[in-house]
Amino acid sequence: MYKAPVDEIAFTLKHVAGMAEALDAGVFGELGEDLVDAILAEAGRFATEEVAPLGEVGDRQGARLVDGAVKTPEGWRDLYHNWVGGGWNGLTAPEAFGGQNLPHMLHVAAMEMWNAGSMAFALGPTLTMGAIEALEKHGSEALKTTYLAKMVSGEWTATMNLTEPHAGSDLGVLKTRAERRDDGSYRIFGQKIFITWGEHDFTDNIVHLVLARLPDAPTGTKGISLFLVPKFLVNADGSLGARNDVFCHSLEHKLGIHGSPTCTMIYGDGKFGDEKGAIGYLVGEENRGLACMFTMMNNARLAVGMQGVAIADAATQKAIAYAKERTQGRAPGWRGEGMSPIIEHPDVARMLLTMKALTQGSRAIAYACAHAVDMAHASKGDQARHWQERSSLLTPIAKSFATDAGVDVASLGVQVHGGMGFIEETGAARYLRDARIAPIYEGTNGIQAIDLVTRKLPLSDGAHVRGFIAELSEIAAAVRATNRKGFGKAAARLDAAITDLSDATEWLLAALDGGRLTDALSGATAYQRLFGLVLTGVYLAKGGTAEAGDGKEDTRIALCRFTAENLLAETGALKDRVVSGAESLAAARAVLV
Amino acid sequence: MYKAPVDEIAFTLKHVAGMAEALDAGVFGELGEDLVDAILAEAGRFATEEVAPLGEVGDRQGARLVDGAVKTPEGWRDLYHNWVGGGWNGLTAPEAFGGQNLPHMLHVAAMEMWNAGSMAFALGPTLTMGAIEALEKHGSEALKTTYLAKMVSGEWTATMNLTEPHAGSDLGVLKTRAERRDDGSYRIFGQKIFITWGEHDFTDNIVHLVLARLPDAPTGTKGISLFLVPKFLVNADGSLGARNDVFCHSLEHKLGIHGSPTCTMIYGDGKFGDEKGAIGYLVGEENRGLACMFTMMNNARLAVGMQGVAIADAATQKAIAYAKERTQGRAPGWRGEGMSPIIEHPDVARMLLTMKALTQGSRAIAYACAHAVDMAHASKGDQARHWQERSSLLTPIAKSFATDAGVDVASLGVQVHGGMGFIEETGAARYLRDARIAPIYEGTNGIQAIDLVTRKLPLSDGAHVRGFIAELSEIAAAVRATNRKGFGKAAARLDAAITDLSDATEWLLAALDGGRLTDALSGATAYQRLFGLVLTGVYLAKGGTAEAGDGKEDTRIALCRFTAENLLAETGALKDRVVSGAESLAAARAVLV
Repeated sequence: MYKAPVDEIAFTLKHVAGMAEALDAGVFGELGEDLVDAILAEAGRFATEEVAPLGEVGDRQGARLVDGAVKTPEGWRDLYHNWVGGGWNGLTAPEAFGGQNLPHMLHVAAMEMWNAGSMAFALGPTLTMGAIEALEKHGSEALKTTYLAKMVSGEWTATMNLTEPHAGSDLGVLKTRAERRDDGSYRIFGQKIFITWGEHDFTDNIVHLVLARLPDAPTGTKGISLFLVPKFLVNADGSLGARNDVFCHSLEHKLGIHGSPTCTMIYGDGKFGDEKGAIGYLVGEENRGLACMFTMMNNARLAVGMQGVAIADAATQKAIAYAKERTQGRAPGWRGEGMSPIIEHPDVARMLLTMKALTQGSRAIAYACAHAVDMAHASKGDQARHWQERSSLLTPIAKSFATDAGVDVASLGVQVHGGMGFIEETGAARYLRDARIAPIYEGTNGIQAIDLVTRKLPLSDGAHVRGFIAELSEIAAAVRATNRKGFGKAAARLDAAITDLSDATEWLLAALDGGRLTDALSGATAYQRLFGLVLTGVYLAKGGTAEAGDGKEDTRIALCRFTAENLLAETGALKDRVVSGAESLAAARAVLV
Repeated sequence: MYKAPVDEIAFTLKHVAGMAEALDAGVFGELGEDLVDAILAEAGRFATEEVAPLGEVGDRQGARLVDGAVKTPEGWRDLYHNWVGGGWNGLTAPEAFGGQNLPHMLHVAAMEMWNAGSMAFALGPTLTMGAIEALEKHGSEALKTTYLAKMVSGEWTATMNLTEPHAGSDLGVLKTRAERRDDGSYRIFGQKIFITWGEHDFTDNIVHLVLARLPDAPTGTKGISLFLVPKFLVNADGSLGARNDVFCHSLEHKLGIHGSPTCTMIYGDGKFGDEKGAIGYLVGEENRGLACMFTMMNNARLAVGMQGVAIADAATQKAIAYAKERTQGRAPGWRGEGMSPIIEHPDVARMLLTMKALTQGSRAIAYACAHAVDMAHASKGDQARHWQERSSLLTPIAKSFATDAGVDVASLGVQVHGGMGFIEETGAARYLRDARIAPIYEGTNGIQAIDLVTRKLPLSDGAHVRGFIAELSEIAAAVRATNRKGFGKAAARLDAAITDLSDATEWLLAALDGGRLTDALSGATAYQRLFGLVLTGVYLAKGGTAEAGDGKEDTRIALCRFTAENLLAETGALKDRVVSGAESLAAARAVLV
């Protein structure tokens, strides 16, 4: 069973991702290390003791649609109320609405642990938190007064309604329409698919944020508006009024995250209310809905990245535990009685260490991204811009690398379990099934790569990414400067990998400059992975050079060395794919005809 | 829906894997190209029209245990009888028992197509064919007379009972016991798990081959005997007699291959018959059971490799079809109206081409392995030994590389489908779920790597593998000699990859020579993948240089180039892991404590 690795998480936050310096510099105001530790410990306890034990039942029972109502798995309603009772839903929300306004770094760390306990469960609150952010930034005072405090407390949950059957990655073609009413509100008509936690039995009301198009809106993405559509209308005194004209038509039968209801939502079908059309309220300005979504998109993408980290960690823990217990054959050098635990076999140890390295690397990247988000919030002027750019750059890498790691690590976890891994009762396969959605939703990893290459590399004319790569070189130099034998050839391997990253970056910047967009996009995914792999190596190295005084220095150095000497060599091949793969890709298009 | 790629398969058999030369040289006797083509066409038709349409229902309904009997999915019983009615079950079986004694190359090609239609369905016959082979080689005349013809015709199916809860990869510790009876038969007692198609409603009888231990047997693998245990005893006239004391206790709830019943079998519980103990008949000699299993293990491993090829092909076809149809966004250079098909996006094209390359490479490796099996059967003396060594060397690579490709390609297939890929009704997720068992069963891919490095590389003191690598270099040279521009830098990339393979091979041979077993095993999996990747590149190159006159030369050359310039660069990192990864792996063991 998953046990939240609170110490490892705290170490990564403080000594790798920059929290220690931020605390020292007073970036987080009054917040001190003691409180950070206490929050992490309690979030971890909740994940370990309350969420994780209900993960399996959620997978097995799934969410079910019965007479138009969604029945959640046994015990999940109570779990949700215990969780919001702990104040977790408002961790980063504004204090004015009952939130705790704590750093995003703490939030992602806590999210990691809850997702590791049950990704299907933690996914619901993730959506609510995103909606809180959008409403806080773009909603009118009236909307905030009516909805925000209850969303922060968790009394009501919220959803994001973007996707339609023909509009997924490309929202410009969505068809859901909104009609203006005389009182300033709107009526919404249309069908939305893949709506996570669109209907459930946790709370009395659900607040839907819905993208729709006004009759006179321009075509494409510049004609999309954002509306708040509650399941139940809210009376002036805050009590619940009539049922709004929106309902869950069906649930998807999915590969994983079975406990999370994925709904097709119908707006304005006339099923409820006297008049057709779900009543909605404009969030932000008309035709500026996509801008409102973009506000929160970076954080949502990072949140999905955390799911990758979470599943990777949970799968790794499970595989290590099994490999210590299961005996089979005799590993070379085994001196014990009878068969050796399979962890003694080099091939199994290699799989487990690879899982560990990818998990730690993904975690560090994601936390560093959250750190940049926090620093941007706390900074002004050039500093704010610097950190804003850093979080922008890191977001697609955190999302894609961590979610790919989630799948790869979970798949290795199945492999470590042998035949038992294929049996559902074992639980290893659930991680693979759950993990598989994360590289897809919230922008496929291919979309992330396009974003990284075409929008993030050009930030400050390439100066930001170049400056970042220079920082990475300094960390590699610090490894060399330690002269610790335990690092093996790590410094040299890091240098080589960083050079690959730098070369690929310059090639892409030149391609973009020269208008060679297809060339740049041809290697975008390889570049994104290259960047993530380099960051994995560098952040593990940074952890290895930290003196945390916890007696785990040698272990961290050994993992850094393993990573540098075994995984980083792949950067050469990835760079190669970026700088010389486009022509053969273009030539091979004929194969697909 | 899957459509058997008969032309592509025929091309690979003939022009890449060596069938054309073998036919010309009369290796297969009277067999001519016309008959080969006719058999492939009909096997493909059956896969496309009869098996594939029933794949989904098998996944959805699964096999169910009702009152001790296994109910197979709707339509599967008829499908099975149509399939055996076509004579397919006895394709390679001896003519004396009603088989067709056709080459193994044809068999693997046909198996690929049926597995692509439904892996869960094709798995049953795979087990029967293995049992036919074991019985034919090691069974007494009496046993053959009673059982073999009915197994060849498919009137009865057969199973392999090896695994027990504590004996999976390490069969030496199995506990199922056999007691001698006065009449020369035995009574079997014990529990076997993970028994594929151990019980079903296809046929009136099921023939179990069971590994068990005699009371006075030596410990370990040298004390294991093989027994034939029929579900129903067979009377002297061939009619069915009493029910034997064996039954299916339960079915596993698995990640995939739901249509295939995975049974826990109980022997000698006293449920059936007057006296406790399932009646069994010795196959081969007492305590030599494992040798009997080894006879068929290579072919069984290759058969599992075919499952990887099959799923990879089916997943690739499905993804290409979807990517042509689904529109989203506008790819750079797209000049059509509105959104472009997603296949126009470079990242999607790259995924599809990678899928195509891994599928074709796996197929070629597996067919080349089958070719070696056929050549070994048809040869004598040094030639027989040469081909025996070749098939021995290729088997672990074919099994592991193709099954890893099955998983990787199916996972890419899910990704290409975006959100729809996560929805079970789409069918892309089923391929991933089904594929995931193949790297595990019939010896995990880690076990294959141990076999490759410790048993196959040392064949003929390393001369065999060195000779093989020299052959690969000749193919690379042939690419260069064509001077065709379409190959791009393929020749140079192939040379570099082959050099990596050669360097890693020499390092491993030296490590084995020096008794550094842990060092050798530390890089075994990386080496196995390196070998598979080099073979993928080389066999695609061989296909690219072939003049088949089918107008597809340019396409094959383009895929070869894409593979060489995009995928082969990974060989450097893999070699690196082999020759310098062991020390850091050993040092990092402390991370796992």
